[in-house]
Amino acid sequence: MPHIELDESLPGIRGLFAFRPETGQPLQQLAEALLRGDSTLERGERELIAAYVSRLNDCNFCCWSHSAFAAKQLEGGYDVVDATLADLDTAPVSSKMKALLRLAGKVQQSGKAVTEEDIAAARAEGATDQEIHDAVLIAAAFCMFNRYVDGLGAITPTDRAAYDQMAEMIVSAGYVR
Amino acid sequence: MPHIELDESLPGIRGLFAFRPETGQPLQQLAEALLRGDSTLERGERELIAAYVSRLNDCNFCCWSHSAFAAKQLEGGYDVVDATLADLDTAPVSSKMKALLRLAGKVQQSGKAVTEEDIAAARAEGATDQEIHDAVLIAAAFCMFNRYVDGLGAITPTDRAAYDQMAEMIVSAGYVR
Repeated sequence: MPHIELDESLPGIRGLFAFRPETGQPLQQLAEALLRGDSTLERGERELIAAYVSRLNDCNFCCWSHSAFAAKQLEGGYDVVDATLADLDTAPVSSKMKALLRLAGKVQQSGKAVTEEDIAAARAEGATDQEIHDAVLIAAAFCMFNRYVDGLGAITPTDRAAYDQMAEMIVSAGYVR
Repeated sequence: MPHIELDESLPGIRGLFAFRPETGQPLQQLAEALLRGDSTLERGERELIAAYVSRLNDCNFCCWSHSAFAAKQLEGGYDVVDATLADLDTAPVSSKMKALLRLAGKVQQSGKAVTEEDIAAARAEGATDQEIHDAVLIAAAFCMFNRYVDGLGAITPTDRAAYDQMAEMIVSAGYVR
């Protein structure tokens, strides 16, 4: 049950955006720029980083949402997403994506956990400054979104089909309402 | 040294905002709404929550910045800020602020660490739904900002006077450039 009075027809973070539109607006714009704006990382790859960090933070709403958004936009769909979340070492993704996901995992622990070696490993697989930036900021942003959702006990549907419906909306219309 | 190529004349998060203005803009707007927009929590109180969480995350740039911004806007200045960061139990702040700072400390650990008892403790001291929301989102947002700054090795001035200069600018002109 939510810790504050939220509109029960709006699941997860959507209820929080509606509760406080002054902060909801820039948060939606951040998600749009980071996960769907111009980037040399595909939208599905960026969603996969979001889902991976949300799994590390044990945030079901964000993990199930962004897994659905990644599955919808990645070749291989849920097979790729589920395998990546289960075991990064054997995940069916590029070596560059593995290095960026490992970097995101360090950021999830702490900004200070990131080492020169983590950055060098990403560069060795061809990651650019902007890709390194985006992986770090996606990981950092989901350390916020995950805490925001679970810290206020936002509504988390348990029927995974609900997340596939949200994915249709996000893929066609984006994050900004 | 920064992990990516940043403008060295721009310390901390400002270098990151300039590196990627597409995400810098909504991040600045989030800070403005959360720390300076309409709220029944004073601006200095909200900055104190930001400084407290940044200390827990061991992020010097954010802790020193937001300590300066809090000191500038709170009666009692740095004495109140430093005492709060040193020991919450004996901090010279209201009981409501102590409860909100404790809640922020839970969010810093994990969204799932927040209990019904933490929320009830804040309500017992008079905190409203919006104040609880704002304390949780400030704490969550600084779990992002702290990781963003340290995860990319952003430039952290060690002369505390630099932060007092930034405070003049933030208090007079706000976060949005």
